[in-house]
Amino acid sequence: MDTAQILIAGKWLAAHSDGTFQAKNPATEDTLPGVFPVSTWADCDAALSAAVEAAKTLRTVDGEQLAAFLEAYADNIESAADAIIQAAAEETGFPLAPRLKDVEFPRTINQLRQAADAAREGSWRRATLDLERNIRSYFAPIGPVVVFGPNNFPLAFNCISGGDFAAAIAAGNPVIAKAHPLHPHTTRLLAIEARKAIEETHLPEGTVQMIYHVGNEDGLRLVSDPRVGAVSFTGSRAAGLRLKRATENSGKPIYLEMSSINPVIFLPGAVAEREEELVRELVDSCLAGSGQFCTSPNLILALEGAGTERMIRGVAKIFSERSVQPLLSASTLERLHQGIIALQAAGAKLVTGGEVVEGTGYRHDNTLLRATAAQFLAAPLDLQREAFGNATLFVVAKDPKELEDVVRLMEGSLTGSIYSARSGRDDDALYSRIEPLLREKTGRLLNDKMPTGVAVSPAMNHGGPYPATSHPGFTSVGIPYAMTRFAALQCYDGVRQERLPDILKDKISNPHTWRSINGAWIQCLCVPS
Amino acid sequence: MDTAQILIAGKWLAAHSDGTFQAKNPATEDTLPGVFPVSTWADCDAALSAAVEAAKTLRTVDGEQLAAFLEAYADNIESAADAIIQAAAEETGFPLAPRLKDVEFPRTINQLRQAADAAREGSWRRATLDLERNIRSYFAPIGPVVVFGPNNFPLAFNCISGGDFAAAIAAGNPVIAKAHPLHPHTTRLLAIEARKAIEETHLPEGTVQMIYHVGNEDGLRLVSDPRVGAVSFTGSRAAGLRLKRATENSGKPIYLEMSSINPVIFLPGAVAEREEELVRELVDSCLAGSGQFCTSPNLILALEGAGTERMIRGVAKIFSERSVQPLLSASTLERLHQGIIALQAAGAKLVTGGEVVEGTGYRHDNTLLRATAAQFLAAPLDLQREAFGNATLFVVAKDPKELEDVVRLMEGSLTGSIYSARSGRDDDALYSRIEPLLREKTGRLLNDKMPTGVAVSPAMNHGGPYPATSHPGFTSVGIPYAMTRFAALQCYDGVRQERLPDILKDKISNPHTWRSINGAWIQCLCVPS
Repeated sequence: MDTAQILIAGKWLAAHSDGTFQAKNPATEDTLPGVFPVSTWADCDAALSAAVEAAKTLRTVDGEQLAAFLEAYADNIESAADAIIQAAAEETGFPLAPRLKDVEFPRTINQLRQAADAAREGSWRRATLDLERNIRSYFAPIGPVVVFGPNNFPLAFNCISGGDFAAAIAAGNPVIAKAHPLHPHTTRLLAIEARKAIEETHLPEGTVQMIYHVGNEDGLRLVSDPRVGAVSFTGSRAAGLRLKRATENSGKPIYLEMSSINPVIFLPGAVAEREEELVRELVDSCLAGSGQFCTSPNLILALEGAGTERMIRGVAKIFSERSVQPLLSASTLERLHQGIIALQAAGAKLVTGGEVVEGTGYRHDNTLLRATAAQFLAAPLDLQREAFGNATLFVVAKDPKELEDVVRLMEGSLTGSIYSARSGRDDDALYSRIEPLLREKTGRLLNDKMPTGVAVSPAMNHGGPYPATSHPGFTSVGIPYAMTRFAALQCYDGVRQERLPDILKDKISNPHTWRSINGAWIQCLCVPS
Repeated sequence: MDTAQILIAGKWLAAHSDGTFQAKNPATEDTLPGVFPVSTWADCDAALSAAVEAAKTLRTVDGEQLAAFLEAYADNIESAADAIIQAAAEETGFPLAPRLKDVEFPRTINQLRQAADAAREGSWRRATLDLERNIRSYFAPIGPVVVFGPNNFPLAFNCISGGDFAAAIAAGNPVIAKAHPLHPHTTRLLAIEARKAIEETHLPEGTVQMIYHVGNEDGLRLVSDPRVGAVSFTGSRAAGLRLKRATENSGKPIYLEMSSINPVIFLPGAVAEREEELVRELVDSCLAGSGQFCTSPNLILALEGAGTERMIRGVAKIFSERSVQPLLSASTLERLHQGIIALQAAGAKLVTGGEVVEGTGYRHDNTLLRATAAQFLAAPLDLQREAFGNATLFVVAKDPKELEDVVRLMEGSLTGSIYSARSGRDDDALYSRIEPLLREKTGRLLNDKMPTGVAVSPAMNHGGPYPATSHPGFTSVGIPYAMTRFAALQCYDGVRQERLPDILKDKISNPHTWRSINGAWIQCLCVPS
């Protein structure tokens, strides 16, 4: 079987590889047909050089043309939807429907189209005019962006179709997409459509490039190369911090989305009011994607009492009854199992599950553990270790003070949820004590809502304090703000009118662009006189 | 003589020091009277703990109270102006007037008051409301900010009164101010006024703390402590990168403003048109503050010709005639002299100056060097080494192609200036070739203007690509955007109206706050129905 080609400078080329790999179907453990190369430095180097060339042209391309590409690409993916979704299902073991076909695929397309709208509108550039001093600034492209996609969203976070990709391109940057080695075939099918769209919309050939895999050392060299403008990575904390260290001397931004335990706190009024409803919501959120969501609730916190005990029994019952879905890979399974053992070693007790499922497919029991808040407080780091997959730890506090203390010792998370009574004010006092503590630990605070399901909204924050991410000021989901990660601030001081970029001139051609002129945000074709 | 006390948790305390130091008057080399402590880890630890406590309260403080503090502080500094300016003059050797009294001092006060206005208005928070989904987000304080001030602006960039300080406080964060050891007495006088203002406006005691000096190892430990929210540093590339490496595992943002050669390019039409005017402008910019501005032009680029030769002679003449001002310290002098020697070793020829001035005071000849573009292209890194101080390198290109190539090999700078003819279009073609190359290397591009003198404007970018800074997306000068460096993005998803922070509610109390509601920027007391 031929080894698949990589996409460099607009061409499908044989990789300079030092090995190959094949993906597996996690549900069957069958090796899938494609053979894919592990690239060496020569491929990275070629991609970087082509990206630098593309970046030069992209700086002069207007938002309309970037939008045209993103829309053509979205259209192309839609035309090839069946094959892409099929490949994603085979490589991830996720259900074809509803997960991939009805949720992740439409989200991916929608994200690309939102990015197109933002590129076209131009408001993301934060054009700022000080007319009196004739100083003007805006966000410009930052240069070649290397995107490392995660294992858990083969489409919506794929290095070549996901949120980081869409944001980087819409901001006018070329992307070097580093596929996740668990879904090379899906990524290849997407890359084919991206390349077509590049041709159709006349963007530079190096605008979108894709390699399947690189060795550790070449990966570190890639992110620290001076030709890179920025790096984005979604994955484990260990791998993320390794990449960050590699960039320590390069002075280029690197955005990491890493581990997150996403605490969900049930206040007693909510438990008393709607215990069964909460159990259903919680189970559905914990087991979505077999618990392999960045925002999957890993730690549940409640006060002791009969209601909490009934909830734990209720969750355990559904966990043990609901069919087990495959995990993404043998190593995901292995790490989950080790994580569960480590939680037990730190004092957590198994309520249900706990074992690897025998037979084909990477499956683990849906697992519920419990611990007391006192135990958590004695071993806070060990008991908030992320066990990525279908496992959840319930921490039971004996009083509000203990509950506060647990929150106080939590690390940063993408999300934090508080459920409280809908009727009456019984939970208000405790909410007021907990919220400030949880707020500073989380990027997104929710009320009466599970954290899974991240809307692509301008107000979304899919980000948060370390270790959830490496910079709490940015979101990786949500257009247009996700784009500012891939922007350089550029100022024009005393520059003559005809030499300014269109968006900074007194008269502009796009009536939809919001600009901050002398401190006021306005949409107008001409600056106020 | 008693050792000066440090400001920790609102109190002047004896440092846990392992040594002391004294400042010198760089003009006379006289040791100045105060004795200041080098703090050990115990002081850093105490400051961090107090800052964490202060941060908790500051999260609940509204913009009005932060503004009141910044304004009270500005007023207090104004009342104490004579003593502060006198101290700054003694510790830096800068002229009392106009430099300190008429330029830097008013700028400092103005910056604090602009920050107060921004805190009060609230628009910097970028409140973003998605009403349909009830998702809302804004910028919140990031937590304790450690500010390292530079040596070259004892007031406007001082760790306890400068732009980073003002931005961090206005964004609602406590500051741990690490004084520059060259101006401890100035910093102490400022800290006295800051503490008074804290009391007057009832902010938490740990809101502003100040230590004079720490050992290298404690400095690295300080910036990497998990209690820190963010770090800002202005200084040398070597020291900046050392700090950055220390934070590699902490996951907290660190903003570095480092070295910048600030190229100034004279196109031939400008030279032909107004050669003498250009010489005067250039000399004034190069020698301002004895060349110790972050934006001082270190590299001048022009095409060969009689006009360029006359300019070089003109600059050399004024350089040799104009009185030499003291440099900030013995080590500044030493590094400048070594830098000039290194430039010569790399092929640059001395046109005038080149020697340390004998006698008291840290003075170096105003120094002009020249090199050909061919030499630059052969040793680009060696010939763009920053020689911080009153030295400038003129690079002469034999044709436009060479000029382009020089720009292509420049590292990132804070600024880049292009002078072209005011009348006629002779320079237009060359401008169009040079500008895109220079644009991507610089944070602020100027026309017919020297880079020194950085206006505090919302449109300013005092930032730029590496090595000028460590993140090209941010500016350290300019309110409100400098504040976003010290902000965490916080999202509220489905949170009940009465639990939202005021600025994210449907109805707000401040009619001046700009908010982005369903994609439109508006000032309004109530969301549109």
